[in-house]
Amino acid sequence: MSDVNFPNLYAVIMAGGAGTRFWPASREKHPKQFLALGARADESLLEATARRIAPIIPPERLFIATGRHLEAKTRELLPKLPTANILAEPLARNTAPCIGWATAAIQRLDPKAIVVVLPSDHVVANEEEFRRVLLKAAEAAAQGFITTVGIVPTRPETGYGYIEKGQPLAEGIRRAARFTEKPPVAVAQSYLAAGSHLWNAGMFVFRADVMRSEIAAHLPELAMGLSVLDSAARDGREASVLDEVFTRVPSVSIDHGVMEHAAQVAVVPGDFGWSDVGSWQTAWELAEKDEAGNALPPHAITFDANGNLVRDLSTKGHTKTIALIGVSDLVVVQTDDALLVLPRERAQDAKLAVQALKSAGKSDLV
Amino acid sequence: MSDVNFPNLYAVIMAGGAGTRFWPASREKHPKQFLALGARADESLLEATARRIAPIIPPERLFIATGRHLEAKTRELLPKLPTANILAEPLARNTAPCIGWATAAIQRLDPKAIVVVLPSDHVVANEEEFRRVLLKAAEAAAQGFITTVGIVPTRPETGYGYIEKGQPLAEGIRRAARFTEKPPVAVAQSYLAAGSHLWNAGMFVFRADVMRSEIAAHLPELAMGLSVLDSAARDGREASVLDEVFTRVPSVSIDHGVMEHAAQVAVVPGDFGWSDVGSWQTAWELAEKDEAGNALPPHAITFDANGNLVRDLSTKGHTKTIALIGVSDLVVVQTDDALLVLPRERAQDAKLAVQALKSAGKSDLV
Repeated sequence: MSDVNFPNLYAVIMAGGAGTRFWPASREKHPKQFLALGARADESLLEATARRIAPIIPPERLFIATGRHLEAKTRELLPKLPTANILAEPLARNTAPCIGWATAAIQRLDPKAIVVVLPSDHVVANEEEFRRVLLKAAEAAAQGFITTVGIVPTRPETGYGYIEKGQPLAEGIRRAARFTEKPPVAVAQSYLAAGSHLWNAGMFVFRADVMRSEIAAHLPELAMGLSVLDSAARDGREASVLDEVFTRVPSVSIDHGVMEHAAQVAVVPGDFGWSDVGSWQTAWELAEKDEAGNALPPHAITFDANGNLVRDLSTKGHTKTIALIGVSDLVVVQTDDALLVLPRERAQDAKLAVQALKSAGKSDLV
Repeated sequence: MSDVNFPNLYAVIMAGGAGTRFWPASREKHPKQFLALGARADESLLEATARRIAPIIPPERLFIATGRHLEAKTRELLPKLPTANILAEPLARNTAPCIGWATAAIQRLDPKAIVVVLPSDHVVANEEEFRRVLLKAAEAAAQGFITTVGIVPTRPETGYGYIEKGQPLAEGIRRAARFTEKPPVAVAQSYLAAGSHLWNAGMFVFRADVMRSEIAAHLPELAMGLSVLDSAARDGREASVLDEVFTRVPSVSIDHGVMEHAAQVAVVPGDFGWSDVGSWQTAWELAEKDEAGNALPPHAITFDANGNLVRDLSTKGHTKTIALIGVSDLVVVQTDDALLVLPRERAQDAKLAVQALKSAGKSDLV
């Protein structure tokens, strides 16, 4: 554990995601971060994210950026969070406006704030190491670096962006030489072999004033929007201009809009059992399994069934006994209104059901 | 169509079966004959059986032998049936006591009755031919033969008993030389090649007085029980002795108890698209399918899914959208309280779920 104390350390958990890869468990109004896909069957990924950082960032310094349609459920899951700490976006504009607004809101409270930005829907096995890495990144951030946590790769993954390690800045901190897009497999293999790159997991730590400067330099329209929000906030009428501002700001990611252009970018390697839980396949990998490799709810029964993931998200009183006989490596997920059956190896295709339901006009099911 | 008219032709549909092979659709209190496994999605096998014979045997001459626990549902499905025509057994004693009691009850109404005994849970594609064969069997029965309808085999089935054809008695009627148990596959193949045997489908036609004589000759304890019922019925108190009689009569099948010993047994070959719908596999074979071979309810969606059988027996308001993606040859059946997933080729194993649930003490689910 780092000895550094950061009383001005704030967190923004980005919890606006839609996510169709966990249909039928995930829905437009019940996205992935609300699902219990981590180690604890009764804790959503969002709750786990907040709990994980609580030892270094208490609820009063925690902000949740989400969409208006998710605000009520978010409050329900995080009852200790101060009312004002939920930033409900009127419409989704990608991560740069989201982080920009959160940074502005925090800066008003504390001009010296250091902000940790975290996704709401990942899992971390080693939570103590995770906090140590965040505090290490906060050290670099305090020095003026926009600092990312780069995950130490464990496979030649082609689904993530990568961060190329640059010169060492201090123990455990390096310059980030370059942000790269999702690579072809051969390139990903060379990254892994060389140990030269880290996964970009969307975790950033920065001083609020530094981020504002970078936004001013690289995203002037967003900077202007944030100024409008600041002015309105001084008069207690931020809410009244929010829709207008979000309609006008560009929809752009923090990676493209800021990170790829920023002057001083650092990276802290993280190796703490991270997963973005990208699909039902990953959920199965992370889940507790019986000796036949089945991840089951207590009311499931199996015979000659191996490697299956069964999830029952039905509400109380609608739960069904689920019997799997002679089937292997399937994903079987039921909710009150839908049932999905597909092979684990095609887990990414859960989204096909969402597309079909949209095409069929069954918007109540997506 | 036979020209013979049989005003004294009665039918007994045996509808006491339990059946675990269609779990979770079938339950102890909702056995297979209550399921719509035939051509019409809204007609149970029991209803179809009654409708199929109605042109030759109207409801007033139709009796249903069932168990007490199934009586209410049976009445609900067959509202035209006279109240007295449901024979609700206090306990299951196999087919000989069942047929014996029904024969006695019918004989009291009509001493010259010819009785057709039919299972309640089979399907027949060619209903006109089916009725023609029954009337042909009734001709033989009128001559004093206990007559079976033997199904012309279409495969070397090892799951059925067989009837060996004997000497011709008349056009389309032969003596039944022998009843045999389920044969090994080599024997079944030789039967098929020789054309010497027919499937025993549990359909019998006989004169009531002939059956009573055979029971008296081969099952004296049952004959005594039936006499007790007859005496009690004359005083209008049959119901009061029923439990006592059924507790005492031997539990034995009509095949073992009577057919294998009877003096005059005939068989009429039947070739009318018969199936006993023995499993979900057979249900799939009989069902209407899309071009990918999927038998689906209207609210199912599929991608790259072939040869699946999906059945949703949920009650109104509990129906779920069912999505199958990238899976083939599965059986997926849901009810309000259970879901089963198994490969079609293991359809017989649905009963394993029932055994497991019984072992687990979950009797509400079986």
